[in-house]
Amino acid sequence: MNRRTFLHGLAAALAAGSVQLVRAQQGFKPFPPAPTLGTPLQPIGTRAASEAHVVRYISNTLPSRHTGAAFAPIGELDGIITPNGLHFERDHAGVPTIDPKDYRLVLHGLVERPLMFTLNDLMRLPSENQVYFIECAGNGQNGYREPPEPALTATRSRGLVSGAEWTGVPLRILLEEAGVKPEGRWLLAEGADAAAWVRSIPTEKGLRDVLVAYKQNGEALRPEQGYPVRLVVPGWEGSIQVKWLRRILVADEPAMSRGETSEYTDVRADGRIDAFTWVMEPQSIITRPSGGQLIEPGFHQIRGLAWSGFGKVVRVEVSTDGGASWQEARLTGPVLPYALTRFVFDWNWDGKEAVLMSRVVDDQGNTQPTRAEFFERWARNNRYHYNAIQAWRVGADGRVQNGDPALAVGAAPPMQAGGCGGEVFDG
Amino acid sequence: MNRRTFLHGLAAALAAGSVQLVRAQQGFKPFPPAPTLGTPLQPIGTRAASEAHVVRYISNTLPSRHTGAAFAPIGELDGIITPNGLHFERDHAGVPTIDPKDYRLVLHGLVERPLMFTLNDLMRLPSENQVYFIECAGNGQNGYREPPEPALTATRSRGLVSGAEWTGVPLRILLEEAGVKPEGRWLLAEGADAAAWVRSIPTEKGLRDVLVAYKQNGEALRPEQGYPVRLVVPGWEGSIQVKWLRRILVADEPAMSRGETSEYTDVRADGRIDAFTWVMEPQSIITRPSGGQLIEPGFHQIRGLAWSGFGKVVRVEVSTDGGASWQEARLTGPVLPYALTRFVFDWNWDGKEAVLMSRVVDDQGNTQPTRAEFFERWARNNRYHYNAIQAWRVGADGRVQNGDPALAVGAAPPMQAGGCGGEVFDG
Repeated sequence: MNRRTFLHGLAAALAAGSVQLVRAQQGFKPFPPAPTLGTPLQPIGTRAASEAHVVRYISNTLPSRHTGAAFAPIGELDGIITPNGLHFERDHAGVPTIDPKDYRLVLHGLVERPLMFTLNDLMRLPSENQVYFIECAGNGQNGYREPPEPALTATRSRGLVSGAEWTGVPLRILLEEAGVKPEGRWLLAEGADAAAWVRSIPTEKGLRDVLVAYKQNGEALRPEQGYPVRLVVPGWEGSIQVKWLRRILVADEPAMSRGETSEYTDVRADGRIDAFTWVMEPQSIITRPSGGQLIEPGFHQIRGLAWSGFGKVVRVEVSTDGGASWQEARLTGPVLPYALTRFVFDWNWDGKEAVLMSRVVDDQGNTQPTRAEFFERWARNNRYHYNAIQAWRVGADGRVQNGDPALAVGAAPPMQAGGCGGEVFDG
Repeated sequence: MNRRTFLHGLAAALAAGSVQLVRAQQGFKPFPPAPTLGTPLQPIGTRAASEAHVVRYISNTLPSRHTGAAFAPIGELDGIITPNGLHFERDHAGVPTIDPKDYRLVLHGLVERPLMFTLNDLMRLPSENQVYFIECAGNGQNGYREPPEPALTATRSRGLVSGAEWTGVPLRILLEEAGVKPEGRWLLAEGADAAAWVRSIPTEKGLRDVLVAYKQNGEALRPEQGYPVRLVVPGWEGSIQVKWLRRILVADEPAMSRGETSEYTDVRADGRIDAFTWVMEPQSIITRPSGGQLIEPGFHQIRGLAWSGFGKVVRVEVSTDGGASWQEARLTGPVLPYALTRFVFDWNWDGKEAVLMSRVVDDQGNTQPTRAEFFERWARNNRYHYNAIQAWRVGADGRVQNGDPALAVGAAPPMQAGGCGGEVFDG
């Protein structure tokens, strides 16, 4: 924030009487201290009852809640850390219950020394702590709708992303102890869910920065995040960050599993298909004000999230006039590679219709496409890696709705229940 | 971590057969995938049932759980973020229940324009996101015991500290809008709990870096952390970071309230009393291995937390021989000012008795005293700001106990129930 800019905006808003800074002479109603003792100490703290509406979004159209996703309520959150209970979730066969005493991780295949680890073995080994985002490759899927859905919220637009501090053993250490043979160029990671979910990771990435993680924001992983052990693969799509990790098979070729053939591949506009599209492209979204919210004229700090699977966010730009002009936002809080980054932008709303947009630039120079640019590249029946600019239209009545432009390219192919292997996040 | 050092240590441990890396030919027992569908998607994730033991510690000797503290289970946690439900808690009259629709913050006294804010007013204003520790001035109080208590745990030694990402309005912005008069050198912050807890903050600090916070790790504050609004005062003792903030009275002198006269003042060895000892001194503690844990010979990564109210942690040193020699630990994860910092140190335990210690150095050059040095300065009936080095003794049987030296200065004055205004955290 430019301090002068803010004060000017706030002063103007005050002069206009539009920011609710009530003066004493206008009648204070001081909030009283509690008349009686409050709630005593508890072993675990709980959320305020008046915040019960802040929960993850689960589409009512899912044929089964064993496969599908719960969206983090990013329209209600601030900062770059997602509380563990609100971290987005994507399962392919429900959440298995694993007794940590029984847990074993097997590392085998094209290695000199096959290894098996208990949870305690892993926790004794060297650990790293890193703040990373995890994002589902299907995040943004509602953006494929045409015409755009007016009632879209920030949560339903991009809530399949969350941020956390992860603690775990660098996979590099386990691989080096096992001794990967030269031909072992792929790591086939498999989960202990009923889907036995498998994804293939190049050994090069495994040696670079993958974590075998057992803690999330300090405490044990939540069951739906892979308890007791999951992979964390910085910057790459969520489905490769295998939860309930039971084994890593070192191989000379990828598994060509369901999760990298029938799902999580991308259809180009010319009909060709891209497989192994691991890196999550640059993204940003304004979370406040955003779809479904109601605002009053006057000063508002616009806030949002930005991130990039290619590295670090270096700049976010905001437009309040539908993309006609752009100004640089301020980044607040830690700015870390492969982590959510919070941006803010001071705005004095004059009460007239406005269209808000954001776009990110990462440290590799990547940025976000417009919706029209995005659709030029990808087929209408693609389902993944949507990262076009999201627009919010603020009406003269203060209501905020989806401001994405209709492209007159005709209705999107219907998202059929079961039609794309459980990828119907929000039908 | 020095990579070569680690590999040497791990290789040696492997050679000695002391690290449980089981080879395939010794019989793998692969962990099977779940045979049936697991738990379906839920609106809020919950902790694993097998982690139910990881809760905050509340002393059984408290005369009332309306005044006292719940200790964060730092002996079980990793990283620098504390999950909101496990953040330490200190109350003086229980936790009030506040309807956010009724909430008001009043800013008055020696100002040009008294102001009152609703919660929505505060959330519209410019915000900052910062990762800070909060620590109770009474953290470490169990260190005053003499002789030291063998069964002390890391949680009971230093668990009145936690780390979180806080979101709020810089208090500076509110003060500048109100226009503090030149004689308004003190800010009297008052809570809406039944204690109407009041602390005095120099206006200079309020203009520098205090946050009027409404979010913690992204979501609304938990009730026990001050819902809906608290002060966050970086680096200063917890009791000044007033929860359930109802007003700030700008004044020309401090309140001399109960919390800065009968409590939260410090008795020196020569009998003089220090008041307004706000800054939390440099601290560090090894959390793994720590008191109450049981370890096996072989490789262990020693882990701990360090922090300083004066600024940033720049170095942590670890001793495994009771302070005879010291080696530099590695800092892992974000290293931020006024935040918890995680340190790690590779150690290959030979199975003989060992005494583990850590000490921090901050960016002002401050470090921790030994226990003997600490007691030279402070009276035996002091109760606050204990920051002496904590030692853990690893017995030949692998049991970890308090390793603090007895100083033969005689038993500490008894901590009487009610004898120090509810400060009997762990009697």
